[in-house]
Amino acid sequence: MSQRIGFAGLGLMGSRMARNLLEKGFPTTVWNRTPERCAPLAAQGARVAATPRELAEHADVVVACVADPPAVERLVFAADGLLAGVRPGFRYLECSTVSPELTRRVQKALRERGADALEAPVTGSKNGAEQGTLLFMTGGERAVHDELMPVMMAMGTKAIYCGTMGQGSTMKLIGNSFISLMLEALCEGIVVGRRAGLPLETILEVIQASGFASPYYNFKGAAIGKRDFREHFAIDLLVKDQSLMLETAAAARVPMPGLAAVREVFQSARAQGFGREDICAVVKTLERAAGERV
Amino acid sequence: MSQRIGFAGLGLMGSRMARNLLEKGFPTTVWNRTPERCAPLAAQGARVAATPRELAEHADVVVACVADPPAVERLVFAADGLLAGVRPGFRYLECSTVSPELTRRVQKALRERGADALEAPVTGSKNGAEQGTLLFMTGGERAVHDELMPVMMAMGTKAIYCGTMGQGSTMKLIGNSFISLMLEALCEGIVVGRRAGLPLETILEVIQASGFASPYYNFKGAAIGKRDFREHFAIDLLVKDQSLMLETAAAARVPMPGLAAVREVFQSARAQGFGREDICAVVKTLERAAGERV
Amino acid sequence: MSQRIGFAGLGLMGSRMARNLLEKGFPTTVWNRTPERCAPLAAQGARVAATPRELAEHADVVVACVADPPAVERLVFAADGLLAGVRPGFRYLECSTVSPELTRRVQKALRERGADALEAPVTGSKNGAEQGTLLFMTGGERAVHDELMPVMMAMGTKAIYCGTMGQGSTMKLIGNSFISLMLEALCEGIVVGRRAGLPLETILEVIQASGFASPYYNFKGAAIGKRDFREHFAIDLLVKDQSLMLETAAAARVPMPGLAAVREVFQSARAQGFGREDICAVVKTLERAAGERV
Amino acid sequence: MSQRIGFAGLGLMGSRMARNLLEKGFPTTVWNRTPERCAPLAAQGARVAATPRELAEHADVVVACVADPPAVERLVFAADGLLAGVRPGFRYLECSTVSPELTRRVQKALRERGADALEAPVTGSKNGAEQGTLLFMTGGERAVHDELMPVMMAMGTKAIYCGTMGQGSTMKLIGNSFISLMLEALCEGIVVGRRAGLPLETILEVIQASGFASPYYNFKGAAIGKRDFREHFAIDLLVKDQSLMLETAAAARVPMPGLAAVREVFQSARAQGFGREDICAVVKTLERAAGERV
Repeated sequence: MSQRIGFAGLGLMGSRMARNLLEKGFPTTVWNRTPERCAPLAAQGARVAATPRELAEHADVVVACVADPPAVERLVFAADGLLAGVRPGFRYLECSTVSPELTRRVQKALRERGADALEAPVTGSKNGAEQGTLLFMTGGERAVHDELMPVMMAMGTKAIYCGTMGQGSTMKLIGNSFISLMLEALCEGIVVGRRAGLPLETILEVIQASGFASPYYNFKGAAIGKRDFREHFAIDLLVKDQSLMLETAAAARVPMPGLAAVREVFQSARAQGFGREDICAVVKTLERAAGERV
Repeated sequence: MSQRIGFAGLGLMGSRMARNLLEKGFPTTVWNRTPERCAPLAAQGARVAATPRELAEHADVVVACVADPPAVERLVFAADGLLAGVRPGFRYLECSTVSPELTRRVQKALRERGADALEAPVTGSKNGAEQGTLLFMTGGERAVHDELMPVMMAMGTKAIYCGTMGQGSTMKLIGNSFISLMLEALCEGIVVGRRAGLPLETILEVIQASGFASPYYNFKGAAIGKRDFREHFAIDLLVKDQSLMLETAAAARVPMPGLAAVREVFQSARAQGFGREDICAVVKTLERAAGERV
Repeated sequence: MSQRIGFAGLGLMGSRMARNLLEKGFPTTVWNRTPERCAPLAAQGARVAATPRELAEHADVVVACVADPPAVERLVFAADGLLAGVRPGFRYLECSTVSPELTRRVQKALRERGADALEAPVTGSKNGAEQGTLLFMTGGERAVHDELMPVMMAMGTKAIYCGTMGQGSTMKLIGNSFISLMLEALCEGIVVGRRAGLPLETILEVIQASGFASPYYNFKGAAIGKRDFREHFAIDLLVKDQSLMLETAAAARVPMPGLAAVREVFQSARAQGFGREDICAVVKTLERAAGERV
Repeated sequence: MSQRIGFAGLGLMGSRMARNLLEKGFPTTVWNRTPERCAPLAAQGARVAATPRELAEHADVVVACVADPPAVERLVFAADGLLAGVRPGFRYLECSTVSPELTRRVQKALRERGADALEAPVTGSKNGAEQGTLLFMTGGERAVHDELMPVMMAMGTKAIYCGTMGQGSTMKLIGNSFISLMLEALCEGIVVGRRAGLPLETILEVIQASGFASPYYNFKGAAIGKRDFREHFAIDLLVKDQSLMLETAAAARVPMPGLAAVREVFQSARAQGFGREDICAVVKTLERAAGERV
């Protein structure tokens, strides 16, 4: 019989992930900080919980996809939080991107109650969540990873086991550091290329014919070409992850001079009001830095 | 009948490119600043010129692949340089990575003599030169691009026309800026990942399953895993290109904060004695910055 | 009659500040996380408290000079923390360098108990603490600033009122950002100057004759000249402040690209084992980045 | 009898320096690329030369204060340049800020003609040039330094001998690197401080009471407070010097991560149209990066 799922966090990603669980037949209860967001899923048959505690009480596995570490703190540790509702055997699947330090703390609290957690941050952005093609990077017990595979495979197509709790989050943060530097390269290249008269299409054609080609350049390059900055992955969230990566690196005593420089550019994009736009909107900040009126 | 080729610059790249021309039947004369490097090609049937002037006199097309702008200055403008030997109809194929300003200057000088140039910097590094699978990014007259296609296709598999003289070089410099930021992302990720206990293999597996996958990460990641820092593309040369890009960007009034930060890391790698090693040796500089004894 | 003082945090700075209070006649109770550090002050007549709560119970004003935000959290909010011992009229003088967000939180908690706080981070480092010549940057109620002037003037020579709670901390963090960039300029200049054969003395002579002269350059330049890296202000603490400044700036949506770049250099110094040395030891990290064996 | 002076380069600095020479009784001939700028000095009694060659022919010492390396190349090495007019015993006083490599090349060419050069870049900006209070940082032969002291002391108040040719220029570039990082610290601090409600006056008061005080902060802080961005030292020129410093550092294999980051901010200021304004106008670029409409 299918595990009963609780889903916490119905944002851009979470709402799509929860719908996939529902559609694949998991009995699903949902909770969101602002309850209005539960309505579309309720209309599809989801039960709605009033608190995270109630969510835990009605589920074997709670999947979370919330915005940031404070949202996880509230979800898990508040008086009406998950912890208040768990019992032995309960599983928590943390799909939010937060710090390794926090996922370890959550795991410890759950284990003290005979439950356990698996961190499983995702990559694939809005389209991957929509189509159920997300990639999970997991950390925790291998047995818990195996146990939760059916749940993950309802939302994605691959789950890579990265090691003990914290290593999945670290991997995710590293991945977002890649995205940050690649997008910076793309946008710096687009701005300087345009000044030299190089069409965006030519830049993308050359890159895709090169050894350093990546589908990511086409995806984001096309959006920039159309000036389509609608959110797939918001600048506010990427900056949050860049900061988590730099904090994690600082704790591990590893300088990241490339990421540190790039984060300030994305910070500037937030300051300029682009925080809720897609990360490729950072091109506008670079255009402004180059004296263009955007 | 095949055009007669002159080839200037028999380094890591040039020697392999010249051999491909020879093997595909182009009558080829070679010149190198240090003449010893001509011997292997002479043994394969190449004629050896004593000076660039002589090289130009014995060729319809001179292909150049030299280290840096001063080497091009010497090759073209010296008293015994190419210019002294050209005549109407002569073609110069500039495969070196230099500044757009310089390639425009060379073109102007050639045109005053009824000749013309095509800039055609390459990507593909040592392996691409060896196997004849280079990608050319060309700038100049479209007709000259078309005319020199057979020569380029003896050394590579694709030539993308980027526009007027200077735009090919700019494209190449942009490409090397991509490489710089991607390699920085990879190496920062490897160092911080290792501290967290993440195996390199896991990092590469996740990246390759992600939307931002690139064959480049496997290529360089595998070399780093084996600590194989033998030159495919030397740090000294990449730093030269980073500096040309920053100068070109400055002239066009475009800040490149990401590249500027990353260049200092590669500068440090040169300072630490890794200039002649492959660009992935920059990982050692990041390891040292993180307090490791490497 | 003199206010009764409680002093929390007997590190490099705090031990010297507490001694000045004692010597100027304030009845003083001390507390330190590791109690051994209380002995020298006890020998001079200080009473020793077993907990922060006890410290608060025996004092009209508690002065704190602890390492970082977690240390303040523990000091104030723990079960046996200050809050448990305060009563109406109690004053808390926060001389630690922490975030504006934290000092505001502490103030709020105290006010709920009829007490109040003044943030008053200091500059002047070890020598200023020793000689009682510190400068305080205060935030909070002006009346509380005035009320606590006698206490501050026992440890320093000047207190500048910066505004409401949080503005003193922000000012302190800005000041440490100045120190960071000035020290980076000095150390980059020393390393590149030495390569060019410029003696350190000449560099310092020119700077001190220039419009941008500062006593700070002589102070730190002389230490570097003697390779004397004994702690006046530890790299670990400056990095902590750089991170607090960057977090505060991020919350205020202000990019700080200069500070962000410089922080990674100091992070590298920590990673290389110089965290407990004086901040001028960052010169060693720059020397290593330049290929020197230090 | 006074040496006959030739003065080349009548910009913001040079015109004031030449006037001081004239007023202190040196028979002075002037030359400027755009001859109109010679008129005010001619009205005060200066002779006007048509070419640098003529300038050299009518002078014992030529003082140069031109914009950048290409201007020096033209001045010295052109067909009608200084070199064509020098004779044994001639002296060239290079007050422009250029690269060590260039001043060494100029010296070599002069020595081959029995003449010699002293590099003597200045600090003090417009006001120092006006009031004759410049500071010279010299490189070359000590005897030439001594010989040219009277000429320098007509324009300034101090000349510090830095060593062989190139070391004076290096010292100047290091000094401008200090200015760059100090101004970045000031402007980042002003922007983040304003967001926190900290008045500029408070920031300056605290800084000037601190160990890292500098008259420079008052000078530039006051201008920023009044939004007075009239040129004392133009952003275009500082960026030129930052680039020369980074090139010189690269040649010496010294990374300068702080300066590299800061240069991109000043590059952005140029790109945004502030190149001819005073260097403190960089605050506008940081304000824009922080989302303000400036």
